[in-house]
Amino acid sequence: MKTVAVRNIKRTDMALAERLGAAGASTVHEAQGRTGLMDPVIRPIYSGARVGGTAVTILAAPGDNWMVHVAIELCQPGDILVLATTSANTDGYFGDLLATSAQARGVKALISDAGVRDVADLQEMNFPVWSRAVSSMGTVKNTLGAVNVPVICAGQLVFPGDVISADDDGVVVTARANAESVMEKAQTRLDAEEAKRQRLASGEFGLDIYNMRGRLADSGLVYVDNLDELGEFNGIDCRNR
Amino acid sequence: MKTVAVRNIKRTDMALAERLGAAGASTVHEAQGRTGLMDPVIRPIYSGARVGGTAVTILAAPGDNWMVHVAIELCQPGDILVLATTSANTDGYFGDLLATSAQARGVKALISDAGVRDVADLQEMNFPVWSRAVSSMGTVKNTLGAVNVPVICAGQLVFPGDVISADDDGVVVTARANAESVMEKAQTRLDAEEAKRQRLASGEFGLDIYNMRGRLADSGLVYVDNLDELGEFNGIDCRNR
Amino acid sequence: MKTVAVRNIKRTDMALAERLGAAGASTVHEAQGRTGLMDPVIRPIYSGARVGGTAVTILAAPGDNWMVHVAIELCQPGDILVLATTSANTDGYFGDLLATSAQARGVKALISDAGVRDVADLQEMNFPVWSRAVSSMGTVKNTLGAVNVPVICAGQLVFPGDVISADDDGVVVTARANAESVMEKAQTRLDAEEAKRQRLASGEFGLDIYNMRGRLADSGLVYVDNLDELGEFNGIDCRNR
Amino acid sequence: MKTVAVRNIKRTDMALAERLGAAGASTVHEAQGRTGLMDPVIRPIYSGARVGGTAVTILAAPGDNWMVHVAIELCQPGDILVLATTSANTDGYFGDLLATSAQARGVKALISDAGVRDVADLQEMNFPVWSRAVSSMGTVKNTLGAVNVPVICAGQLVFPGDVISADDDGVVVTARANAESVMEKAQTRLDAEEAKRQRLASGEFGLDIYNMRGRLADSGLVYVDNLDELGEFNGIDCRNR
Amino acid sequence: MKTVAVRNIKRTDMALAERLGAAGASTVHEAQGRTGLMDPVIRPIYSGARVGGTAVTILAAPGDNWMVHVAIELCQPGDILVLATTSANTDGYFGDLLATSAQARGVKALISDAGVRDVADLQEMNFPVWSRAVSSMGTVKNTLGAVNVPVICAGQLVFPGDVISADDDGVVVTARANAESVMEKAQTRLDAEEAKRQRLASGEFGLDIYNMRGRLADSGLVYVDNLDELGEFNGIDCRNR
Amino acid sequence: MKTVAVRNIKRTDMALAERLGAAGASTVHEAQGRTGLMDPVIRPIYSGARVGGTAVTILAAPGDNWMVHVAIELCQPGDILVLATTSANTDGYFGDLLATSAQARGVKALISDAGVRDVADLQEMNFPVWSRAVSSMGTVKNTLGAVNVPVICAGQLVFPGDVISADDDGVVVTARANAESVMEKAQTRLDAEEAKRQRLASGEFGLDIYNMRGRLADSGLVYVDNLDELGEFNGIDCRNR
Repeated sequence: MKTVAVRNIKRTDMALAERLGAAGASTVHEAQGRTGLMDPVIRPIYSGARVGGTAVTILAAPGDNWMVHVAIELCQPGDILVLATTSANTDGYFGDLLATSAQARGVKALISDAGVRDVADLQEMNFPVWSRAVSSMGTVKNTLGAVNVPVICAGQLVFPGDVISADDDGVVVTARANAESVMEKAQTRLDAEEAKRQRLASGEFGLDIYNMRGRLADSGLVYVDNLDELGEFNGIDCRNR
Repeated sequence: MKTVAVRNIKRTDMALAERLGAAGASTVHEAQGRTGLMDPVIRPIYSGARVGGTAVTILAAPGDNWMVHVAIELCQPGDILVLATTSANTDGYFGDLLATSAQARGVKALISDAGVRDVADLQEMNFPVWSRAVSSMGTVKNTLGAVNVPVICAGQLVFPGDVISADDDGVVVTARANAESVMEKAQTRLDAEEAKRQRLASGEFGLDIYNMRGRLADSGLVYVDNLDELGEFNGIDCRNR
Repeated sequence: MKTVAVRNIKRTDMALAERLGAAGASTVHEAQGRTGLMDPVIRPIYSGARVGGTAVTILAAPGDNWMVHVAIELCQPGDILVLATTSANTDGYFGDLLATSAQARGVKALISDAGVRDVADLQEMNFPVWSRAVSSMGTVKNTLGAVNVPVICAGQLVFPGDVISADDDGVVVTARANAESVMEKAQTRLDAEEAKRQRLASGEFGLDIYNMRGRLADSGLVYVDNLDELGEFNGIDCRNR
Repeated sequence: MKTVAVRNIKRTDMALAERLGAAGASTVHEAQGRTGLMDPVIRPIYSGARVGGTAVTILAAPGDNWMVHVAIELCQPGDILVLATTSANTDGYFGDLLATSAQARGVKALISDAGVRDVADLQEMNFPVWSRAVSSMGTVKNTLGAVNVPVICAGQLVFPGDVISADDDGVVVTARANAESVMEKAQTRLDAEEAKRQRLASGEFGLDIYNMRGRLADSGLVYVDNLDELGEFNGIDCRNR
Repeated sequence: MKTVAVRNIKRTDMALAERLGAAGASTVHEAQGRTGLMDPVIRPIYSGARVGGTAVTILAAPGDNWMVHVAIELCQPGDILVLATTSANTDGYFGDLLATSAQARGVKALISDAGVRDVADLQEMNFPVWSRAVSSMGTVKNTLGAVNVPVICAGQLVFPGDVISADDDGVVVTARANAESVMEKAQTRLDAEEAKRQRLASGEFGLDIYNMRGRLADSGLVYVDNLDELGEFNGIDCRNR
Repeated sequence: MKTVAVRNIKRTDMALAERLGAAGASTVHEAQGRTGLMDPVIRPIYSGARVGGTAVTILAAPGDNWMVHVAIELCQPGDILVLATTSANTDGYFGDLLATSAQARGVKALISDAGVRDVADLQEMNFPVWSRAVSSMGTVKNTLGAVNVPVICAGQLVFPGDVISADDDGVVVTARANAESVMEKAQTRLDAEEAKRQRLASGEFGLDIYNMRGRLADSGLVYVDNLDELGEFNGIDCRNR
């Protein structure tokens, strides 16, 4: 493996990245054809955060956070650190000191395929982290890795400069080249959803809004009046209930 | 498997269901002889919610939430959706649009043996969900399942109309036929607990309140004065500590 | 196994235990050479709590909380209950009644290698618990265990009187004999961290504060200007990105 | 919960149960519409076993195998013990002595939603077990449960007398009332599979045997000649590979 | 943490260690009062092995197997390596080369709270390993640990010289000071089991051999004739099944 | 996502792929700088298999194996199927019929990031599979995916034509462009290992063969004569043991 740090990366336009973040992980995920979702094992350390930004990627050795320091120097305001490891590890790679340094550089968040610590401080600092684990176990600064190289984080390939959209639902990565078209589709979804939300709130059924009744009948859905009429279901007697 | 929706179900009396919910999952679980507790892998998406209501059950295909729309039309105020799947799946079956529709029908909550998404919105809407997973991964509307049939959700058999009691401790199902007698026992427990709580708060020991001292001695519990007197325990030398 | 309760234990000085708790689990863990950290599977039932106190240990049978009552009588203000089981079990060993009793005795918290319940009540009472599981499943009072004996809780050996430091990052145990020297090292770390935090907040890089640049170069870290210069990385073509 | 043992149960015809076992778990599962499959966490303790028999069900307390002894007396040749617990537990409920006793009664196998031990002996005795866990941790004989009542084992409802089909793929339960029709459908599948196996072995494609080509094209599958023609896929540049 | 290797340890008598190994993990575990069993997550890499020997303990850094080399030099014929790590890690610490070296010194087996690799070679060499994980991920030789110090391996405290009994059921540690008395109790169990096995094989019931019938009745076990007489159980209607 | 099948791919030379397979997953993984190892959750369905071949990749919908049929037609002798899914799923995507078809085309093995079934038949056919899960749960043929596109399987990026080396230790992917240089390094390792194996088997220590003694002393490893001299370790009194 090359031990290398890439100084200059092509970032997605920041306004676009922020719009994707605001659209939310679930909407972005749909808009790009259900791709780019990190493994749900990555969870926010506190609820309510929602961010969009550009990835600065870190590939680190197990239990070694040396490369995080290298990465922070290469960050610009609006970046999001994306940490992957060369071997599975759940140590606390990142705490309040690194967050202080990152925040001073305008970094918005950390996505960690390993662990994190000082989570109470991070919440107080309003520095959100999505992480595989929380652990007091610290790390060393001994073994080189790489910065701003392609990494696989929680099952998704991330290139530096790609967009990260993260909220309570999860973390989604959007390739830089696709960001604009994905945002267009996301906006279309958001607009359509708003209209549907109002109809649903007024009591209309999804069955009617989405014209499902015919397809349900064609597919063979049968309505029965009660459990006695149903009789048996999957081997369970439903009569007289 | 029959692809069927049962229109009319016999619901437990709503006031009774609400009393069971207010008694709390742990108390109800004790009151019915430690039965009916769903697997603790089902967790609330936010803390502090407590509900009691009547089950409208959904059996869905993996990654397919078509039946949720069918179920909502069959709901009445006070119902709780209980979602099981025919094959293990952790996708986000339910989000803010479906919650808007459900809330417009008076549905109180969702219990999902799969996943859920838009959890920040759901918390803001005050629509509680207990779920196996949180995931941005959406679902399709392609394959039929069934509504208001008996389902096994997180290891528990649920018939439509049964009572669901859910809070931060977990989710408990009570069969309709047993709801009244279970509530009586739960009330007895709650009354007894209140009395005990006051005695314990005043500094009395459970050892005395529950008359345990004799039974402990009979069972062979020995008190020693200190670790030196204990000597060795499970192969660990305890002297001079 | 001896079924025994040890009446008198040598506790770490309470002021010292409280200082260790205030220093935080991660700092204490570092200060004692990265030892004593319980398995991260032990998580707080609500966030934001931070405690330090002296261990009163419980070794209980699976699904049996009889010994908890015995332990509470032996507690003093400032103690923390540490519950281990003789066989893996995730039942709810401890709820609001036991917490009321423990709080009346000045007990600060519970560390449970099993489960806990009534977690909404415990949060309202401000009684923090770090636990492997949350479960409505209650326990019986049938089988003896032991109190104030050495136990292994979440992978760590705990003697009665040892210090427990617990917060959102995790739970760390400090042997009584080491508490004073560990606190000295922890204080040194806290002082040094405060100085570093200010420098990092002002925009200085960890690379400079920790004098890493030379070591990084010696270890072979190479900086390249952009992904085109990088070419290929781990088999992935990085050009024209 | 009633502490009860049911002496006489209606068993599925043994020849039918054995045919279902020989058809294999996967085939039976398909034949009954993809229902009745236990959670795959239940695994065989050694590979190569395949059985079909009638369920004698056990509901046991955590860490307590008293009811297994009660169940064995109620067994007949060809029965399969199905063990569920009232609370999650992975102790070793069953070992070589109980297997000796069960085998003497003609019992064919054990399905355990808890743990098992003496697995080397069990393999030597040719007594197959499908279990959630293997553990040396023994159990006590202290708390009553029930025998030959409906139980939920690994997520599936099992009535005494139902058919259990178990092999290296997993464990499937078939309700007694459905056994005959399920076996008919299973036989149809087995016959069809044999014909297809010969065609596939001779090199014919599933695409042709199942007439998939038209449906694939209609659904929108596009063939391209090579990765250069593909260009980009999910944000990954595929040219020049 | 002291980085230290202890040259001379007091080993349990080898003949005694071998007898404990031959008695089997489950029997030894019972004989010492259900203590000393490692977490069942530790599994054999191939089935059928059974060993007893004396522990040489290793405490290693994550992803670093340097101390294994140090430990092998300190081994004597009949020893069993017991590997714990200072931080959770599942890398392959041990492969065929180290096994060759260990076997040349008379080492019988490895118990690893981390990972292992070259498992096909190890099986061919007849060198058994019980391990938390199998992984091709290699380790470095960079960071010191300790040899022949007390370690906690899979939740159990192990002192150098203690007895390890391992087979397909799991791994049990016996403190050196207790080994003789534990073996006596184990022998008593083995003798009693042999007698019972013959009676059970001849068709006698455990209910009679263990005189359970009276206690079952006293405890309240009720026999009913069939499911119709049972009526309802845990909310499930059992009639007409 | 494009629903596409790529007809022609550039395969790594087959003799080279077979040599990499014979070198073994662990050696290949080391030779390419500890990269390319799939998550160890992917395990062989039976032990003892070892293969090397060229990847034909499949990206499938959850619970849908339609694309497997498309892939088999595009296979050549020596290929290995690599199955990834667009959403996490553990259903049995592949069984004995598909294996018959694949084997008729010269396919050597399947790597599945989902599930597999008919595992007893697959072992009998000598068709090895490395899989996340074993499950009787079948799949449908309903939703398109893609064939011979880049996929992320168990955390590793795989391009069609890359080399897969799989054995009992795990699964490693080698990019086509790197295969030759990786094999050279692997051969160097194999040659060196053979020499070391003989020295180790003759009783030489790794400490001497690898010249570790000086570095150990420089790093601060201290040898003490016995536990009494050690005194205390990590808070545990080691004297008089």
